[in-house]
Amino acid sequence: MADLLERLGEIVGAGQVMTGPDMAGYAQDWTGAWVSAPLCVVRPATTAEIAAVVRLANEVGVPVVPLAGNTGLNGGAVAEGAILLSVERMSRIREIRPEARIAIVEAGVVLERLHEAAGQHGLAFPLTFGAKGSAMIGGVLSTNAGGSNVLRYGNTRDLCLGLEAVLPTGEVVDLMSELHKDNSGYDLRDLLIGAEGTLGIITAAVLKLVPRPRAYATAMVAVASLDAGLALLNRLQEATGGAVEACEYMPRAYMEALLAHDPALKPPFAESHDVNLLVEVGATAPRDADPGPDGTVPVQAYLEAILGDLFEEGAVLDAVVAQNDTQRAEMWARRERAAEVALAPGPVAVNDIAVPLDRVGPFLARADAAVAALDPAAVALPVAHLGDGNIHYAVRLSQGDAGLKEAVVEAVEEIVREMGGSFSAEHGIGLAKLPSMRRRKDAAALAAMRAIKAALDPAGVMNPGKVLPD
Amino acid sequence: MADLLERLGEIVGAGQVMTGPDMAGYAQDWTGAWVSAPLCVVRPATTAEIAAVVRLANEVGVPVVPLAGNTGLNGGAVAEGAILLSVERMSRIREIRPEARIAIVEAGVVLERLHEAAGQHGLAFPLTFGAKGSAMIGGVLSTNAGGSNVLRYGNTRDLCLGLEAVLPTGEVVDLMSELHKDNSGYDLRDLLIGAEGTLGIITAAVLKLVPRPRAYATAMVAVASLDAGLALLNRLQEATGGAVEACEYMPRAYMEALLAHDPALKPPFAESHDVNLLVEVGATAPRDADPGPDGTVPVQAYLEAILGDLFEEGAVLDAVVAQNDTQRAEMWARRERAAEVALAPGPVAVNDIAVPLDRVGPFLARADAAVAALDPAAVALPVAHLGDGNIHYAVRLSQGDAGLKEAVVEAVEEIVREMGGSFSAEHGIGLAKLPSMRRRKDAAALAAMRAIKAALDPAGVMNPGKVLPD
Repeated sequence: MADLLERLGEIVGAGQVMTGPDMAGYAQDWTGAWVSAPLCVVRPATTAEIAAVVRLANEVGVPVVPLAGNTGLNGGAVAEGAILLSVERMSRIREIRPEARIAIVEAGVVLERLHEAAGQHGLAFPLTFGAKGSAMIGGVLSTNAGGSNVLRYGNTRDLCLGLEAVLPTGEVVDLMSELHKDNSGYDLRDLLIGAEGTLGIITAAVLKLVPRPRAYATAMVAVASLDAGLALLNRLQEATGGAVEACEYMPRAYMEALLAHDPALKPPFAESHDVNLLVEVGATAPRDADPGPDGTVPVQAYLEAILGDLFEEGAVLDAVVAQNDTQRAEMWARRERAAEVALAPGPVAVNDIAVPLDRVGPFLARADAAVAALDPAAVALPVAHLGDGNIHYAVRLSQGDAGLKEAVVEAVEEIVREMGGSFSAEHGIGLAKLPSMRRRKDAAALAAMRAIKAALDPAGVMNPGKVLPD
Repeated sequence: MADLLERLGEIVGAGQVMTGPDMAGYAQDWTGAWVSAPLCVVRPATTAEIAAVVRLANEVGVPVVPLAGNTGLNGGAVAEGAILLSVERMSRIREIRPEARIAIVEAGVVLERLHEAAGQHGLAFPLTFGAKGSAMIGGVLSTNAGGSNVLRYGNTRDLCLGLEAVLPTGEVVDLMSELHKDNSGYDLRDLLIGAEGTLGIITAAVLKLVPRPRAYATAMVAVASLDAGLALLNRLQEATGGAVEACEYMPRAYMEALLAHDPALKPPFAESHDVNLLVEVGATAPRDADPGPDGTVPVQAYLEAILGDLFEEGAVLDAVVAQNDTQRAEMWARRERAAEVALAPGPVAVNDIAVPLDRVGPFLARADAAVAALDPAAVALPVAHLGDGNIHYAVRLSQGDAGLKEAVVEAVEEIVREMGGSFSAEHGIGLAKLPSMRRRKDAAALAAMRAIKAALDPAGVMNPGKVLPD
C-alpha cells in the first residue's frame, strides 16, 4: 500500500495523492447517498499521467474509478478500495474555433465555464441541466448527459465530434476528430460516451458549438392538461420551424414542494395550477430575433400570439412571458432545483425514465395509481422534459422500508416497459440501477456488453461493478 | 457442401438458396470492380431465419457476408467462398407514426421508398445520395451513410433511434428504442451502425423523420472562389437560422466530364465557370414557406436577395434559381451522377476524404499539385459536400499502373492527415481502404476494434476480412 502510494506520487506528484480525511470531498456525493472508502485519491494533470496511473493499476491489480464533477445520481463514482482518479486538474479549454464551431476541452472543465467561453464568441454549447455549475465535461460525456435542450440539440453524444481517452489497459486512443463525416472503423467514440468510465477515462473532447440564439422567448404557462401542453409544443414547433429549446413540465405537487423547499422562490402565477410548463424558443435568424421599429421581438410576438390563441380555446389557463434576463432566470430556477427537491432528506424512490412523447400523460396517471396502491401516503414529485419524453419520477415514501422502495421502482418500471419506454433515460446505471439492468435489459445485449467489457478491460480494473450486473 | 445447401434451404426455403449463374446479380457490384465467387446466395425473409443461418454458419465454420442494395463502393460485400446473405426480402415498412415522427423499417427497404412513404405523411427521411433508388436501409445503416444533407440533419447514425440485429453468434439483440433518451448500458446501436456487417446483421431500425420542408429554394451558383462559396453558405445559414440543406461543389473539370458522360444533361450556365455550387434551403415554418400576396415564396426571396448582394460584391458570377420541381430535379441530377462519372471505365484513384470546412480549398490546391507531380496527364474530378467538408476526390489516371494508383492515394492521404482530416469520410473501409486503415488509423484504436471484433465474433464468421486489416 505505502509502495503503491509512493509510485502514484511519482506519477502525479506527491501533493496530488490524498488519503484519509483529505479524501472527504471526493469519497461522498452531494446527496450523501453514496459514500465509499477509496484507497486514495489521485489528481493527475495530463493524459500521460492518467495513462501511467492506469498502467500501474493493471500491474498491481487495483481498481481505478474516474471522478469528474461528482454530480452523478446513481453511484457511478463509488470507489470502495479503489484509486479514485479525479480529472479536475485537467481543466483547460484548449481551443475554441468559432469559424469551425468547435470547442476542444479537457475532462475537468466545468460545464458552465464552457457555456461562458462559447458565449464570448456568440456561440453556445447547448447542453444544460441543474448541476451545470459543478458538472465537468468528463462526467457529462461518460454519462451521455441529456438535460433540458435535448429536443432541439440532442444528447451529449450528438454534440461530440471527437475524443481522447485512456483505455482500461492504459493505452491512449486519439479520436480527436473535428469532422462531421469520419467513417474509419468502429464507433469507439460513442462506445466510450455513456460507458460511465467502465471502458476507459475520457480525457478530452472536440465538442460542437451552435449559434447562440440572438433572442429567447421564455414563458411559464399553466395549461388545462398535458395534452394541451403537447398541442402548445407542436404549434410552437411548427410556427418557429423547430426552434423550441425546452418544454419542461412541473405539476402542482412539485411546485408546492419547491416553494416549501425554498420560500424565497416566487410562485409563477397568482393561482396555483395542476399543469405548469416552462417553454423556451431560441431565435437565431435576425428576422426572428431583431426588434422591429416598435421594439417588439418577433419570436416573443409569435409566442404571445400562440398563447393568446390557446387561451381563447381554453387550452391555456394562464401565462407569463419573461420580459428580461432576470425573469427568464427566475423561471429556470424553478426547474433547475428539481434534484434538490426530490432528494431532500427522507425516503425516496427515484425513477429516471423515458416514454414516447405522447405517453407522458398516460404514464403519470398509471404510475400515480400504482404508487398509491403500494403506499397511500406517498407523494409523487415528478418533473419532465416534455419535449423528449424523459420523466424524473421521484416518489417521497411514507417510510424508509427498502422493500417498499424496491416495489415502487419495480411497479413504475413495469408500466414503463408496457409503454415502450426505458428504465434509464439520462442518469445512467452506476450502482443504483444494476437491479433494473439485470431484470429489464435485453439479455443478448447484456451479454454483448459483458463481452466488450472483458475484451477491453481484461484485468477488470476500470470502474468495476458499475453498469453491468454480475 | 450439398449438405450445407440443404440445411440452408430448410431455413429459408429451397427456392431462396442460389448457386452458380443464379448468383450473377449478387456476386458483382454495379461498378464491376468487385467480383467474387460466393458459396451460395441465401435470401431469408425474417430475423429468425437470418439468426438460424448465422448459427449454422458458426456451426460449420463458413463465413456470412450480408448484402443490402449492393451500392457500396469499397468491396464491403465481397463474399468469396462465403454465404452471401441478401436482406432484400426483408422489405417491409413496418410502421410510420407521424405524431412520433418515426418510421420502423426492415433492412431491405430501398431508401427512395422510405422517402416516398414519409412524404405521404408530410414528413421526410432526410438522408439522401445518388444511389437512393437502389440502396437499402440495412446498407445505409451498416455504412453510416452520409450524403448531401448531413450539414442540416447529420449522418445515418444521427437519424437512427433504435435497431434490431443478429449478432455474429446468431443471437438477436432487440434495441428497437423509439426514445430520444435511453442511457441503459453501452451504445451497441452506434457500434453496429457503420460496422459494415462485421459485428452483426442489422435487420430492422427505428428511424427519425423530420418535417418535410413546405418549400425549397434551390439554385445553381457560379462563385468567384471556394472562399466566396463558403461566404454564401454562411450568409444563407445566418439569414435562415440554419435551414441550408445542401451546398454541393462541382468544379469545371467535373462539369465538363459530366456533360461528356451524358450529353442529354444541360449545362447550368451560358458560360462555364471554375466553381459551381448547388445550394438548397428548406423552409418548414409557414412564414418562410407560404407564398405572399404577390406569389413570392419568402425563402426564395431571401436566397435571391443574398445572391443579388453577393453578385454586387463580385463573389457570385452567375446564378439560376429553380422555378419549379423539374428545374430543381435537373440541378440535382448534375450532382447525383458523380459516382458514374468518376467510375467510368479507365484507371481511377478514388479518395473519399473529409477535412475541416475551411480547408476544402487549400486541400484541393495541394492535392491537385501532388497528383500533377505524380502523373502530369491525370485529371482530377472532385465533387464535394462543401457544407460538411467531405470531398470525393477521384482522379482519372493516365495509365492503369497499380503502383501509380497507390502512390496517388497515399499522397492525397498524407495531405489529408496534415490538415486534420479523415482518409475515410462516408464510404467506409470495406476491402478497398484496408491499406489506409492499416497505415493511418490510431494504433490503440485499431487494437481496441480488433478486441471488440474477437469478443463478439469468436468464430470469425461475420463478414471476415473487412474493415480491420490483419
